[in-house]
Amino acid sequence: MRAGPSQDEIRRQNLGALLRYVHVHGATTRAELTSRLGLNRSTIGALTADLANAGLVSEGTPKETGRAGRPSLVVRPESARVYAYAYSIEVDRLRAARIGLGGELLDRRDLDRPPGLLVDEVVPLLAAAVTEMQQAVPAGSIRVGTGAAVCGMARRDDGLVRLSPHTGWSDESLAERLGGAELGAGGPVVTGSVADLSALAEHVRGVAAGCDNVIYLYGDAGIGAGIIAGGRRITGHGGHGGEVGHMVVNPGGRPCSCGSRGCWETEVGELALLRAAGRAGLSGQAAVLAVVDPAARGDASAQAAVRQVGDWLGFGVANLVNIFNPELVVFGGTMRDLYLAAAAQVRSRLNSNALAACREHVRLRTPALGDDGALLGAAELAFERLLADPLDVA
Amino acid sequence: MRAGPSQDEIRRQNLGALLRYVHVHGATTRAELTSRLGLNRSTIGALTADLANAGLVSEGTPKETGRAGRPSLVVRPESARVYAYAYSIEVDRLRAARIGLGGELLDRRDLDRPPGLLVDEVVPLLAAAVTEMQQAVPAGSIRVGTGAAVCGMARRDDGLVRLSPHTGWSDESLAERLGGAELGAGGPVVTGSVADLSALAEHVRGVAAGCDNVIYLYGDAGIGAGIIAGGRRITGHGGHGGEVGHMVVNPGGRPCSCGSRGCWETEVGELALLRAAGRAGLSGQAAVLAVVDPAARGDASAQAAVRQVGDWLGFGVANLVNIFNPELVVFGGTMRDLYLAAAAQVRSRLNSNALAACREHVRLRTPALGDDGALLGAAELAFERLLADPLDVA
Repeated sequence: MRAGPSQDEIRRQNLGALLRYVHVHGATTRAELTSRLGLNRSTIGALTADLANAGLVSEGTPKETGRAGRPSLVVRPESARVYAYAYSIEVDRLRAARIGLGGELLDRRDLDRPPGLLVDEVVPLLAAAVTEMQQAVPAGSIRVGTGAAVCGMARRDDGLVRLSPHTGWSDESLAERLGGAELGAGGPVVTGSVADLSALAEHVRGVAAGCDNVIYLYGDAGIGAGIIAGGRRITGHGGHGGEVGHMVVNPGGRPCSCGSRGCWETEVGELALLRAAGRAGLSGQAAVLAVVDPAARGDASAQAAVRQVGDWLGFGVANLVNIFNPELVVFGGTMRDLYLAAAAQVRSRLNSNALAACREHVRLRTPALGDDGALLGAAELAFERLLADPLDVA
Repeated sequence: MRAGPSQDEIRRQNLGALLRYVHVHGATTRAELTSRLGLNRSTIGALTADLANAGLVSEGTPKETGRAGRPSLVVRPESARVYAYAYSIEVDRLRAARIGLGGELLDRRDLDRPPGLLVDEVVPLLAAAVTEMQQAVPAGSIRVGTGAAVCGMARRDDGLVRLSPHTGWSDESLAERLGGAELGAGGPVVTGSVADLSALAEHVRGVAAGCDNVIYLYGDAGIGAGIIAGGRRITGHGGHGGEVGHMVVNPGGRPCSCGSRGCWETEVGELALLRAAGRAGLSGQAAVLAVVDPAARGDASAQAAVRQVGDWLGFGVANLVNIFNPELVVFGGTMRDLYLAAAAQVRSRLNSNALAACREHVRLRTPALGDDGALLGAAELAFERLLADPLDVA
C-alpha cells in the first residue's frame, strides 16, 4: 500500500544499494555496478563520489587485467576505517570483535565464560575488551554501531533477553546495559540470538548466500533456529520466532527446562547425546566431541548414542522441512558435530518423514563461516542502519 | 541490493498503491488518500484520473457529511465492472465465483463434488459455471484473471497439484488445464492451496487484517496452513511450504497417507475425530458436526472424543507458536468446528507447551470470511497482477 518514493528517498536507496553491493561482494568495478544496479554510468559516478566523500568507499585502479583499453575504476568498501563492534555471549565463552565494512574481522578478543556469570558481570568484561581494541583504531575511523549475539531469546526490537535458561538470565535488558557506560559511544546496540545472527551472516556471505529459504539450526546447551523465508528473517510478532528447540517431538519424552516435555532440544541437545552415551553430567563442545570422535573410530556404544540422537535430529528437521520447504538446512554449534557424525540417520529420517515435494531440493550443510558466524551476523545487524541510509550515519 | 526505481516505476507504484488502497478499504476520499499514501493533492488527482480513464475507479461526491465546506471527492473501485473469476476445488464440493475489485462477490455457483472426481472431470464443470456467469457480465467490463484454490499441494508458481491424497490427484497441472479451453479467456490462471488463499483473504480483508504474523489452519480430510510472517506469505523454495499437517507430533501414532506415522493430521484431522467418537468410516463436515454438536449438549462419549483430539490440536498449535511467534491463529474449515468445541483444551495445551514469550500475545480466532475465504483469496491472487501494474493489465 506504500506509494512510490520521493527523489530524496530514491537517492538514499541508490546510495544504500551501492554501498551494500560492495559490502557484500567486495571491490567491484564501476562497470559491474552499473550493470548490477541497473543505473547509468553518471549516476554510479555521482553516488560513488558521495560515498567516497563520506569516507565509506574508496576508488582506485584495479589490478592488471591483461585486457586492452582503459580499465573501469574499482570501488572498495573502506573496511579498515568503517567498523562495528560485535559481541557473542555464549554459554561458555564471551567474544568481542571489531569488524570492518565488508565483513572484515579487524580485531578480536575471546574469553572463557565461567558458568552462571550474570549480565552485570558480563558487561564489564566486554567493555574492557572494547576499550583495549579501541586503542588500535586509526584516527578518522567511523564507528557505525554495535551488534550483540546472545544464546537465549533476545527480543529483536529492544534486546530484552527474555529467557536464557542456559545462562540463568531472565528478562535482562542486555541491549540497554551494553549501550550504557563505555560501550555505547558508537550508536545503538542491536541484539539477536546466536542462531538468528549466524543465519544472517551465512545468508549475506556464507553457505546460504543467494538462498531465500534457509533454516540455520544452532546447538549449544539448547537449540534454536535462525530462519530465512522468502529472503527475509522470520522474527515473529514479539521478536521471538525460531524457538524450534521447544517444538515437542516426543510427547512421552523427558521433562524440558521450559516446563513442557519431549521438546526437540531434550531429545537432540548435547545433554541428550551425553546422556545417551552414558556421560550425563558433562556438557560443552569438548564433551560432545568426546562422543562423536569415538563413534567415528568405530566405538559401538558411542555409535549407538549418535544414531539415537541423530534420528531425533532428522525427526525435527523433517518437521521443519514440511513447514518451510527450505532449499538449505545449516547445522551450526554442536549441531554441526552431531550432524557430521549422524548424517546418514538425519537423511534417512528426513526421507521417511518429510513429503517428497518439500524435501526434494533441500541441501544439508555445515556453516561456511564456522563459529565466527555469530560475530559476523552481529556486525551485519549493526551495519543495517548504515546501509539503509549511508550519509545519515556516516 | 536493488537500486531505487525509475520515474516510470514510481508512477506504476503510485497507481498500484492508490488502486490497492481502494480495493482493500473501499470508497475513500481524495483527502484520505493524500494523507494515507503520503502524496500531494495534485499527484493524487492525476493518478485518480489515469485509473478512472482505464475504467478501474470512479469518482463522485460522498454521502452528506453534515460538515461545512466543499466535500472531498470520493474514489471508488469499479467493483461491478472489474472482476476476476475464482474457483475453490475442495474434497466434497466445487465452487466458482465472479468477484469484483474490492472483494465484492458478484455471482457464484456451488456444486457438490462426487468423491474421486478427476481433474479432467472437474474442469468442464467449472467451465460450465463460468460460461453461465459470463452471460450476466455487463458490456465493457474488464476481466483481470482467474485464481483457483485447491485442497492439496498446489505449487505456487505454476499450479502443479503435486499431491492431493484426499482428491486422488498427483502431479496434475491444474493451472494449465483451467487455463486452456473456455476458461482461459481472461488472463493467466494462478493457484494456491485452500489454506494459503484463505489466509491471504483473511489478511487482506478479514480477521487478520493488520496482522503481520498469522497462522491460518485449515482442515478438511487433511490439514494444512497458510502462514504469513512479517506481512508476507511463506511459500517455500519450491512453493510447497505450510505442510503443517505432516509435522509428526506423535512418533508412536497411526500411519499417515504420506508414508510417515503420527503426523498431526492423523491425530487431529476429521478422520481422527470420527474414529475417536466411534464413527470410523464417515467423513465430511456433517459428520464432524454430528460429533461436536452432541459434545456441546453434554454427550459424554462425544465430549471425550473432542477432548482427546482437541488436546492434539493444541499440541501442534503450540509447536507452531514456538516456531513463528504469531499474533493470531485462525481455525478454518473443519478445524473451526473442532476448535470451537475444544477451545479449552487447545488453550490449555498451548499454555503448557509453548514458551510464554512466544504465546503471550497470541489470539485464537475463527475466520471472519467463513468458507468464502478460499474464493476471496483466489480472487486476491488474480488481482495481484492488476494491482502491481494497473494500466498494463486494464
